[in-house]
Amino acid sequence: MPASERLSGIFSPVVMPFKPNLEVDADRLIRQCRWLLGQGVGIAVFGTNSEANSLSVGEKIDLLDRLVDAGIDPSRLLPGTGLCAIPDTLRLTRHAVKLGCCGVLMLPPFYYKDVSDQGLFRSFAEIIERADNEQLRIILYHIPPVSQIALSIPLIERLIEAYPRTIAGIKDSSGDWANTSAMLDAGWSDFSIFSGSENFLLQTLQKGGAGCISATANINPAAIHYLYLHWQGPDAEALQQRLVAIRNCVQHFPVIPALKSIVAHYSADSSWDRVRPPLVELTEEQRNNLLSELEQVGFSMSGLAENA
Amino acid sequence: MPASERLSGIFSPVVMPFKPNLEVDADRLIRQCRWLLGQGVGIAVFGTNSEANSLSVGEKIDLLDRLVDAGIDPSRLLPGTGLCAIPDTLRLTRHAVKLGCCGVLMLPPFYYKDVSDQGLFRSFAEIIERADNEQLRIILYHIPPVSQIALSIPLIERLIEAYPRTIAGIKDSSGDWANTSAMLDAGWSDFSIFSGSENFLLQTLQKGGAGCISATANINPAAIHYLYLHWQGPDAEALQQRLVAIRNCVQHFPVIPALKSIVAHYSADSSWDRVRPPLVELTEEQRNNLLSELEQVGFSMSGLAENA
Repeated sequence: MPASERLSGIFSPVVMPFKPNLEVDADRLIRQCRWLLGQGVGIAVFGTNSEANSLSVGEKIDLLDRLVDAGIDPSRLLPGTGLCAIPDTLRLTRHAVKLGCCGVLMLPPFYYKDVSDQGLFRSFAEIIERADNEQLRIILYHIPPVSQIALSIPLIERLIEAYPRTIAGIKDSSGDWANTSAMLDAGWSDFSIFSGSENFLLQTLQKGGAGCISATANINPAAIHYLYLHWQGPDAEALQQRLVAIRNCVQHFPVIPALKSIVAHYSADSSWDRVRPPLVELTEEQRNNLLSELEQVGFSMSGLAENA
Repeated sequence: MPASERLSGIFSPVVMPFKPNLEVDADRLIRQCRWLLGQGVGIAVFGTNSEANSLSVGEKIDLLDRLVDAGIDPSRLLPGTGLCAIPDTLRLTRHAVKLGCCGVLMLPPFYYKDVSDQGLFRSFAEIIERADNEQLRIILYHIPPVSQIALSIPLIERLIEAYPRTIAGIKDSSGDWANTSAMLDAGWSDFSIFSGSENFLLQTLQKGGAGCISATANINPAAIHYLYLHWQGPDAEALQQRLVAIRNCVQHFPVIPALKSIVAHYSADSSWDRVRPPLVELTEEQRNNLLSELEQVGFSMSGLAENA
């Protein structure tokens, strides 16, 4: 991607496969990324749904290397690199830039609570100043339900003003359309606003947004990407409703184990059910209910079993 | 400390000095630890107030080595080792045990929210099983206002039952005396219950608790330790009230920068004011108000300037 081009499209925060001893299963991850790319979506590896914060920095660096060595196009990789400690964020971010990733998705530091906009500004500024690399593109990651740290509109504006080239966009996982809408209204130029859920994809695109980075892009990538391509078509509203129906089956379960159960089921590969603590896999009853709900709305995933 | 002896006393989550480039200042940390030990308290290095989650695992391992190499008695060190990712927690915990630390203070993984007791149990169990070391003593760290992850009494009981030798105690930083009191009433044997604030020290000791691990043990260590030694004496209630008066001056400011400002002032060494983002140092006005409030209650710190 040329540096001048705005990041856009659909990205999947790919779920993370583990071996029986809970080590990362790089080979399965590579195959899953290939399948996702074939469905038209980019890979937000190390998103919340990747259990990224249950992996060490060293594990993440090794995995990025493995993906790129396996021929995954780094310009389709948007790794999550924001951690609590500046040295960790910096190390992973530098590695992602070195490999040619199209950008990084950056959480604010999330241990200390009630931090000020000034403190958050300084956190991002330290990373940017120390990385000191014109290729760095940061997609800010606003997910207060999990991180408990909000990125306010004045903070975003201050970051854009200070680092217009580097601060390239935001993923809004607040689940609050009013917040996404207010950001879209702000008129920031060359700034990519991604919804954190495809439930808001059509609205986001209609207001000039860049796409979405969504948990359920793990299981329904092609249909989400299709709406991204055809949002100005006559059936866009119907396509959107269909995405919502599928997502609604998933989001009342613990989302990460639910996504993994769906991948496990449709790839006939139960190893996908594994999660690292503190997460736990779905119960048999939850899994049956989830799959049955998805069947009732006519959902299926194709091509996964052959891929496995 | 013999393995059979219950951990007890007062521990200070020592504040972390930084150089102008925000690197850790190991020499200043060593001096500060020596001063604290001289005041009678142990060192809960890498507590919340140590900005531990703003340091990388590598930085923490190096610092532990530096402290022990400098002659700090490892049996007086209780490092915080609980991180989001099991490999990180395991690495730091193993290093602490290898160095002979008296125990480790262990946060639960704190990124994912709404996790189950089952998931938290598995998190601690994975660490204990993988560390596989009879010398390991874990003090659980319950600090829901910051971590947003609560350790319930049924979870604690399950951990004690499964690992009676390893699960050695808990620090309760809920700020809720009813919670500490309920734990003290549970009758767990050979289990050390530390209050997270000296405001509850006398009550904690009266009910059989082990002491406290408190932010303000950075600035008022000798007096807190004195109450620990003399809690059955006739002036215990007055000593407790005096501790509360001092703590109350501090806790309505952002606590970590406030503690650092106090150390900076009384050691005439402004480098102590530095914090890593996302924290910010106190404003001049906050600093003046804080120091003036402390003066009004007759507070001072002695021996720090000579130490610096």
